[in-house]
Amino acid sequence: MYVTHLECPKCNIQYDHNQLVQLCTACGAPLLVRYNLAEIKRKLKKEDLVGRRENLWRYRELLPLSNPEEVISLGEVMTPLLHLKKLGKKLGLSDLYLKDEGMNPGGTFKSRGAAVGVSRAKELGVKKLGMPTNGNAGAAWAIYAAKAGIEANIIMPIDAPMITRNECAIAGAQLYLVNGLISDAGKIVAGAVDKYGWMDASTLKEPYRIEGKKTMGLEIAEQFNWEVPDVILYPTGGGVGLIGIYKALLELREIGWIGDKMPRLVAVQATGCAPIVKAWQENAKASDFWSDATTVAFGITVPKALGDFLVLDALYQTSGCAIAISDEKILSNQAELASQEGLFICPEGAANLAAVKELVKSGWIQENEKIVMLNTGSGLKYPDTVKVSVPTLQPGDSL
Amino acid sequence: MYVTHLECPKCNIQYDHNQLVQLCTACGAPLLVRYNLAEIKRKLKKEDLVGRRENLWRYRELLPLSNPEEVISLGEVMTPLLHLKKLGKKLGLSDLYLKDEGMNPGGTFKSRGAAVGVSRAKELGVKKLGMPTNGNAGAAWAIYAAKAGIEANIIMPIDAPMITRNECAIAGAQLYLVNGLISDAGKIVAGAVDKYGWMDASTLKEPYRIEGKKTMGLEIAEQFNWEVPDVILYPTGGGVGLIGIYKALLELREIGWIGDKMPRLVAVQATGCAPIVKAWQENAKASDFWSDATTVAFGITVPKALGDFLVLDALYQTSGCAIAISDEKILSNQAELASQEGLFICPEGAANLAAVKELVKSGWIQENEKIVMLNTGSGLKYPDTVKVSVPTLQPGDSL
Repeated sequence: MYVTHLECPKCNIQYDHNQLVQLCTACGAPLLVRYNLAEIKRKLKKEDLVGRRENLWRYRELLPLSNPEEVISLGEVMTPLLHLKKLGKKLGLSDLYLKDEGMNPGGTFKSRGAAVGVSRAKELGVKKLGMPTNGNAGAAWAIYAAKAGIEANIIMPIDAPMITRNECAIAGAQLYLVNGLISDAGKIVAGAVDKYGWMDASTLKEPYRIEGKKTMGLEIAEQFNWEVPDVILYPTGGGVGLIGIYKALLELREIGWIGDKMPRLVAVQATGCAPIVKAWQENAKASDFWSDATTVAFGITVPKALGDFLVLDALYQTSGCAIAISDEKILSNQAELASQEGLFICPEGAANLAAVKELVKSGWIQENEKIVMLNTGSGLKYPDTVKVSVPTLQPGDSL
Repeated sequence: MYVTHLECPKCNIQYDHNQLVQLCTACGAPLLVRYNLAEIKRKLKKEDLVGRRENLWRYRELLPLSNPEEVISLGEVMTPLLHLKKLGKKLGLSDLYLKDEGMNPGGTFKSRGAAVGVSRAKELGVKKLGMPTNGNAGAAWAIYAAKAGIEANIIMPIDAPMITRNECAIAGAQLYLVNGLISDAGKIVAGAVDKYGWMDASTLKEPYRIEGKKTMGLEIAEQFNWEVPDVILYPTGGGVGLIGIYKALLELREIGWIGDKMPRLVAVQATGCAPIVKAWQENAKASDFWSDATTVAFGITVPKALGDFLVLDALYQTSGCAIAISDEKILSNQAELASQEGLFICPEGAANLAAVKELVKSGWIQENEKIVMLNTGSGLKYPDTVKVSVPTLQPGDSL
């Protein structure tokens, strides 16, 4: 393992990665995993990846695991990077891509964080964990915890996608609903972790989930043969994926696998919950709590993200931007992706396409640029976003 | 392309594969695609696969496509072959595996048939297709048809999984429900194909779907490094997957990539719809129509399969067997797979585990044997199979 320590990005205090640490004890900020990148640069060559299986474990040198042979795996795959020729043509873009994270176990990108987070928790001897969730992260951690033999305590808003309840329940997790938002669930978890001896697996309250999400960035770079695209759009709630992708690219630059150029990162939010967009518009370093948050893209209903300052920093550093999309546009773009490209994706992911259209219109995206939209999950988890009106026939009827 | 012709397995009449042909015009049997296997044997080496992407298109020489660069793809992956150590240990089996077809686009193995079937239909100039379905096949063909720009007309029982309606609808298919079974839907489609000029994409009524399903067998052989396992269990409705796996293994044997040994193939059905099991018990060559078919494993509610004689032949030729499982056992094994191995799979796939238990008990499966259970789909598509009883908290509550 090439990990050297954990580090607070705010006050730079270092922590031992062989201990279970949650947040910076001095300032309460999330911790980042640091590697001996100089040694990785010396020892690891791109060619070493050839012949390794096409999944996130192929980047094991850049992952925080002592024993890569004993990871908790549910059959992760390198998710496809799909060239959307039909929609691209409509928009005048020859290089419009969608990376489909709906192809992960459990149907969402949350599996990446859970695969690495639970594997590392197991190495550190964790027996019980607790987490608030908008549904998909809880479901992902529940199934990986089941495989690992770790007790999972999951608290989700009553409005979280129904299927995620089923996933937690059948995986044997302790599940609770809360008649409120993820921020309310978070407070309940915070009050229970000490009492019951749980590891707090809340977003960014442990440092390893982000390392799993980071692999999206590693895959994008490899899938483009180590030439990064011009723009990456990411539906942003807690923002861990965006932080992870940015961290991946910085590490790849450090080991010399990509050049200096960075993609412009775009945080896509819903107009009903857009704290990052508001902060970015105000050029602020952190976001304010968003009151009365509501959107059909439930996974990004996060009124105040713990890592908001890291998301905003990534946008500023890469000359990116933030943009908010209405629920109406989210749903119409979801339908367009399915009927044109055969991709039934989640509303969060569909928001990206609406964002691309606006950014093309404003000239922020140029027609010759390589654009990657990150779809965070499968539409199968959001049946209520589709309105179906269908005739019923009787046996013996004819059309 | 190495295809030489289409062939009727009953009366051996040959047909031109460059024409759109459905069933044998002489006897009405399904047609099989035949290849110049001698030439493939000469030209293709196992090493040629190294470096090809991990998805079904890596076997392009054994697929019926003129232009493998122009296939209709939604990001297929080589589905994971998972070693179930915990459950295996409980059953005294050191080599119990599950191949998780829930990792396909759309969450089921049906995508394989649709990927190859729609790609070939496109090559043959098809503009419209029609099919009866228990839900998942229709959804898969609807999304691939959307990508291909082919009009899909889908007719499914009113009891088919709800989510499959949404998939068809959002993909822009023409969707109809029928207040009956897939056999009733089949009659409606049969009456409409000529009238509207549809290709009939019903199970086995066109020869290419089976070629897509075949790739499950190719992957299993490759994932075991071309040493086939001892037993493969397959939840059997129409049985195309089982026929396809058997065809794959025969072709691999013919080109010398595997030896003479064949896995024993097991057709797993539900007690509420077990025509193949009944026929196998009676050593019959074909099955009888199963009246009042009903099971929670909706995908295998097929009262009479067009390819029943091919399924039974595969069982007899490989010294396999057929076994029926109650809905109660299907559901308890589904829960056990989720809580023990973190795998939330469909009821059809869960039936396999119950079958393994019975076959271990009867001594038909030995403890040192390599066993593969084929899971045909993700549990995400069957939310109603999970009973959830969960407490609701209020903001500010504590645990």
